[in-house]
Amino acid sequence: MEPFKIHILGCGSALPTLKHYASAQVVELRGKFFMVDCGEGTQMQLRRSHVGFTKIQAIFISHLHGDHCFGLPGLISTFGMLGRTAPLHVYGPAALGPMLDAVLRQFCTGLEFTVEFHAVATTRQQVVYDDRSLTVESVPLRHRIACCGYLFREKPTLPHIRRDMIDCFEIPLSQINNIKNGAGWTTPDGLFIPHDRLTLPAAPPRAYAYCSDTRYMPTLHEAVEGVNLLYHESTYDAAHADRARLYHHSTSVQAATVARDAHVGRLLLGHFSARYDDETLLLREAQAVFPNTLLANEGLVVSV
Amino acid sequence: MEPFKIHILGCGSALPTLKHYASAQVVELRGKFFMVDCGEGTQMQLRRSHVGFTKIQAIFISHLHGDHCFGLPGLISTFGMLGRTAPLHVYGPAALGPMLDAVLRQFCTGLEFTVEFHAVATTRQQVVYDDRSLTVESVPLRHRIACCGYLFREKPTLPHIRRDMIDCFEIPLSQINNIKNGAGWTTPDGLFIPHDRLTLPAAPPRAYAYCSDTRYMPTLHEAVEGVNLLYHESTYDAAHADRARLYHHSTSVQAATVARDAHVGRLLLGHFSARYDDETLLLREAQAVFPNTLLANEGLVVSV
Repeated sequence: MEPFKIHILGCGSALPTLKHYASAQVVELRGKFFMVDCGEGTQMQLRRSHVGFTKIQAIFISHLHGDHCFGLPGLISTFGMLGRTAPLHVYGPAALGPMLDAVLRQFCTGLEFTVEFHAVATTRQQVVYDDRSLTVESVPLRHRIACCGYLFREKPTLPHIRRDMIDCFEIPLSQINNIKNGAGWTTPDGLFIPHDRLTLPAAPPRAYAYCSDTRYMPTLHEAVEGVNLLYHESTYDAAHADRARLYHHSTSVQAATVARDAHVGRLLLGHFSARYDDETLLLREAQAVFPNTLLANEGLVVSV
Repeated sequence: MEPFKIHILGCGSALPTLKHYASAQVVELRGKFFMVDCGEGTQMQLRRSHVGFTKIQAIFISHLHGDHCFGLPGLISTFGMLGRTAPLHVYGPAALGPMLDAVLRQFCTGLEFTVEFHAVATTRQQVVYDDRSLTVESVPLRHRIACCGYLFREKPTLPHIRRDMIDCFEIPLSQINNIKNGAGWTTPDGLFIPHDRLTLPAAPPRAYAYCSDTRYMPTLHEAVEGVNLLYHESTYDAAHADRARLYHHSTSVQAATVARDAHVGRLLLGHFSARYDDETLLLREAQAVFPNTLLANEGLVVSV
């Protein structure tokens, strides 16, 4: 199965700590690399990771709070110094467009690549990116300002050819593509072998949802139903539910409730408040609701 | 003697490395703390240092390249979250003003402190800050865009009272301030003790100059004549003098030449190119011209 991995570059919240960087991660799928959020220090964290700078083809920004986008000017400047030529696509709330223009005008003259901004809908779920391997949808979230998550859905892959059947019926290699795409095979003596006997079904397509930042949304589970991995912000423990509501953040129990209601495979908690020296309490409280939960951490790579 | 120290937060150049952060340092003088330059990651580095966030009263920006100012939005946001109420003064080239305004409008609504911007002259040496402890002057530099260094000059302090003389002549404590400020003392039996016998001269006022980024300037030594400590950029070794000239940077030999011609106390090299795994070569080449040279490094604290 082709890799589908999340590289955590930063999973802290707004206040910097010695433990966590501001929000940033890289989604790796079939050799493609997409960044989600880009807080201050992302380029340093990217250097620490094993993801090449040149591989990032697009950046998805959830919302315009500094801890989710202050790393963008530095990263784009560095792409320029490294001689990037491939266009860089940036997705985010509409207000990011003019800000990006201003940064490019002031700091990034003479870039050898274009930065193409795409405003995304933050109030409705919408496919904002589509290629032959995957789609990315915006997922409306409820934060203090316009904010959306992103849902990465792998496209179905072709079934696997059964080598034993190819050999057994002496099917010429030239037919493999036809069979992968749904054809059967008729032997020289007229026996028809249906497609299903010649192939094994491909693994079901996988999906990853990134939901940060958001107040608890009782209906969010509908948007992320059945994803293999859900990253959900978990700024506070349950005792701080009032504070979470006030600042439009979530507790780990609320994150776990979304995960449970959405029947996801695994839940990855992140966006931790600076008040926690370690997040074991957040993990324990979440696991009581949804056992298959883990904590994000800088440098962690999670398979979807 | 009151502390006069430089805390190095970052001394790399534009391209981030795992070794060096972008330019930033804190000048500490008589309990006051001033930041000079503020590259991406400065707030994380400030947290690693032992300088309190609330102590920074002003920030001096040399020029508008990202590696000298991309940390400003995050640092100001964090000041806001930490509940700062004291005004923050920001000094820098005029073009920084509107950029700062835009950042404040978009990301920093509801701050409980004001950010007061002061445009500095980058083409002539000028006192840009003045209080009872020190002055700060801009120092014109030659870079690709408007750029200046900063020269921190301690003001003369009052002489030290000689405790032995006070005791010997039984001078009342109420007279100490008069004596510190220049008065002598007449004993009850009419003997006049001149000021000079009652005091020891204060240490001569100290000075620190920050010069980054700049091409080699044969006349720069005039501006920084006799400072106790000179921070001079030293992006390249001597073999890359052409490259230094092209990009308006300096070699370590050029930095040392300025130090020698200015008769400074010590030279602190910084703004190292990402090409050096260690900067021993830069140090060695500089010391051949000016022996009292040291290398900056993150976390280093140097007394002026």
